[in-house]
Amino acid sequence: MNYRVIFNTIGKIAIVLALLLTIPTILAACLAESSWWALLTTVGISLVIGVVLTFAVRPRTKAIFSREGLIIVALSWIYVSAIGALPFVISGAIPNYIDAFFETCSGFSTTGATILTGDRIDSLYDTDKALLFWRSFTHWIGGMGVIVFLMAFESGSSNRGMHVLRAEMPGPSVDKIVPRARSTAQILYLLYIGFTAVQIIALVIAGMPLYDSFVHAFGTAGTGGFGVRSDSIAGYNAACQWIIAIFMILFGINFNLYYLWILRKFKAAFKSQELWIFIGIITISSAAVSVDLALAQLPFASSVGDAVRHSVFQVASFISTTGYSSIPASAGDINVFPLFSKSLLFLLMFIGGCAGSTGGGLKVSRVAILSLAVRKELRRVLHPRNANAVKFEGKTVSDEALSGTARYFGLYMLILAATFILLCLDPGHGLEAGSSLTLEANITAAVSCVNNIGPAYGVVASGYYMYNWFSKLILSFAMLIGRLEIYPILLTFAPSTWIKR
Amino acid sequence: MNYRVIFNTIGKIAIVLALLLTIPTILAACLAESSWWALLTTVGISLVIGVVLTFAVRPRTKAIFSREGLIIVALSWIYVSAIGALPFVISGAIPNYIDAFFETCSGFSTTGATILTGDRIDSLYDTDKALLFWRSFTHWIGGMGVIVFLMAFESGSSNRGMHVLRAEMPGPSVDKIVPRARSTAQILYLLYIGFTAVQIIALVIAGMPLYDSFVHAFGTAGTGGFGVRSDSIAGYNAACQWIIAIFMILFGINFNLYYLWILRKFKAAFKSQELWIFIGIITISSAAVSVDLALAQLPFASSVGDAVRHSVFQVASFISTTGYSSIPASAGDINVFPLFSKSLLFLLMFIGGCAGSTGGGLKVSRVAILSLAVRKELRRVLHPRNANAVKFEGKTVSDEALSGTARYFGLYMLILAATFILLCLDPGHGLEAGSSLTLEANITAAVSCVNNIGPAYGVVASGYYMYNWFSKLILSFAMLIGRLEIYPILLTFAPSTWIKR
Repeated sequence: MNYRVIFNTIGKIAIVLALLLTIPTILAACLAESSWWALLTTVGISLVIGVVLTFAVRPRTKAIFSREGLIIVALSWIYVSAIGALPFVISGAIPNYIDAFFETCSGFSTTGATILTGDRIDSLYDTDKALLFWRSFTHWIGGMGVIVFLMAFESGSSNRGMHVLRAEMPGPSVDKIVPRARSTAQILYLLYIGFTAVQIIALVIAGMPLYDSFVHAFGTAGTGGFGVRSDSIAGYNAACQWIIAIFMILFGINFNLYYLWILRKFKAAFKSQELWIFIGIITISSAAVSVDLALAQLPFASSVGDAVRHSVFQVASFISTTGYSSIPASAGDINVFPLFSKSLLFLLMFIGGCAGSTGGGLKVSRVAILSLAVRKELRRVLHPRNANAVKFEGKTVSDEALSGTARYFGLYMLILAATFILLCLDPGHGLEAGSSLTLEANITAAVSCVNNIGPAYGVVASGYYMYNWFSKLILSFAMLIGRLEIYPILLTFAPSTWIKR
Repeated sequence: MNYRVIFNTIGKIAIVLALLLTIPTILAACLAESSWWALLTTVGISLVIGVVLTFAVRPRTKAIFSREGLIIVALSWIYVSAIGALPFVISGAIPNYIDAFFETCSGFSTTGATILTGDRIDSLYDTDKALLFWRSFTHWIGGMGVIVFLMAFESGSSNRGMHVLRAEMPGPSVDKIVPRARSTAQILYLLYIGFTAVQIIALVIAGMPLYDSFVHAFGTAGTGGFGVRSDSIAGYNAACQWIIAIFMILFGINFNLYYLWILRKFKAAFKSQELWIFIGIITISSAAVSVDLALAQLPFASSVGDAVRHSVFQVASFISTTGYSSIPASAGDINVFPLFSKSLLFLLMFIGGCAGSTGGGLKVSRVAILSLAVRKELRRVLHPRNANAVKFEGKTVSDEALSGTARYFGLYMLILAATFILLCLDPGHGLEAGSSLTLEANITAAVSCVNNIGPAYGVVASGYYMYNWFSKLILSFAMLIGRLEIYPILLTFAPSTWIKR
């Protein structure tokens, strides 16, 4: 194991975290908010850790293997979550460290699950805009990836690259856009910054305040979902809601396609099967939810226009794994949706965005490959001698890739089941009399966190505050496991990774 | 496609069904119950269909391929369910044909889901013992398989055998116990009859009435779960409950092992990994549920002895996919169990019995092979060059078998999701004010039916009567799909099976 390169890289990540934290620190200073001190302290802590690790632990060789790549990614993400939580604790906004760790894991993993109650969020919006900015900014960093960021902007970066890039980027297969990993990372981040800027401008034009536009664009770009108001997006006008809905879908699409568009390779871009499956699922689901919602005659969605807007918004929010809500606080939460809509949205949680997007979930391409593998299996049972090749995106999917995807799915379901059953040990606290954690609440909470969505059903629709510290730790790791697609976190904690045989 | 051999075999199945139906017909006549006429009519109908198909459609060649084997199995099961439902309709016990079809599918597939309300079951127990006998007898026939029955007892049977035996027997791989398929079928049925007889005797000794002993032994042997009282097994004494719990576990074990025991090959029998995993899961789950139940201080399980008895009973009932309940009617239904226990039982639904048992679910060996495949995948990610072979039951599992199992799991989850979302279209009817179908109710109903268990949570804990005809049809096919392990039913309804390319 090349320990030196692992520690050295984490050192660099620590410096990057310190630099990123200076942005909310400056904001806090400008707004004269008391949290500037907490933010600045954290900048200092991370800077010291970073400098020590980077300069004291110089790697003898930069050669790394798959194993080191996975460990670097896992430990980097745990580092940024653990240290990124400090401003909340030091400032007293979230005094309990495990709560703050949960919130920061939720941020970086682009989940958007919160332990803050609605009242608390509204009061922080009045007094601690810089902290809420940092909370949403973690979405933006986590969306494209903190190591991809390092790779893109580190001067003289060695091409240690693809192992790490693959481990951090979502999806079953990551293509390099251009031959060099560093240039790929740069292109991805430039596209990402560009789209985010366009969304901020659009939101401001539509009438959203500038600060709110920034934080919501961060939440949308990373497909995170942290809001700054207790009613999420419901309090903004219909135009803002449509803009966010459209951008949630845009950020759920493979970024490679945007690069192809920019290069004017429209034909190649529009040939993407994954894109059309993604759009197809969104269209059909939105139509189904619209009809269901219109029939249910809910007061906030009684006109066809409103029903369609809320349907498209919620479908985009769930399949892109963002988790924003357009349901007015007066109407309640996602639990007021009719059963069919709730159930369909629940299934969309599993699918998630496209590979190479900032979305979570299983990813559209993985679901598509799984379905093709299933069709192949059915054909094999019928005609044992004819073995048809599975084709996806114009290429033959190798048997190894097929079974790898199938095994990934098996592992994913085992992790879901484990998360769910561990949550069920928790009776929940701080709940009103008569309401309690149910099978529905826990199963949707587990699915929501592993797939990096955020909202869940039942009592958890109003936040994750009712879980105890053990459940919060379980969910924090579930979110990181989901964001990094299982292997990095799981293998970093597997004894066999560390023990020499 | 060899249509002649398909119709000819279904003809023979029709004759077998007629013969099996004579047993409840004679019982009805002896008890002077009015249903004898309905039963006799059905005997007549099936006999006519059988004779016509068997003697009019003589196969030119007995050669069949995998495809014909699957279709024979699927159509046979649909036939026995469709015709086996007639006595309920003709007698007026279940006047609606779709209800009766649901009930009979539930019977043959050994699910035990019922559309009868508790009051109705109690009143049928008083007036229509023969019909309830038939209802439970379908469990017994379905447990070991109707075609296995035909193969075992058809004189001069051609050795068309293993294709069909494999398609009907549960589990990822079916070993012939002895070289000839027919002898294998005979041995299986003799063991099955023997065990059932022992259970009947044990129940009678423990104080259960003779008729009740028969129907409950049928329900246990087939791991079905139809009871004859509204409170399932709760009304019988603790000794009867223990006997049923133990036999539910015994019928969840691979029958090949019993044959090895009879041959005194104890060493080979006890080497079975699947057996030990099954026993391990039962032991750990029973212990966990016992603690949870004891802590919950429910009135019917306040002593440690009662808590252990109810825990072992429910764990055995769910993992063997039987579905009997030991919870007193005064306490309510499975919904009174604490959340952790309910959730653990829910996960056990997926596992099911051992391969080659009468139990449903994914099967212990399939779950074990999936877990091993997952472990292999983790190792591959860590050490891309070392490819360790997966071993199960002392043999290397081929890559083909591994990915076949993983793809089966993918297909299984897709079917669960489809069943679930289709159920959510149904608002439910006949429910008390304030109670309704929920996500929990529908998800557990789908899981319960696909895995052939029977009981579900929420309002469905009291039966499936609230679903409309569409949902009942979906669930009927879900039960058959689950019992026949997906491929036969799915491929029989796939257009590509019938269209020549």
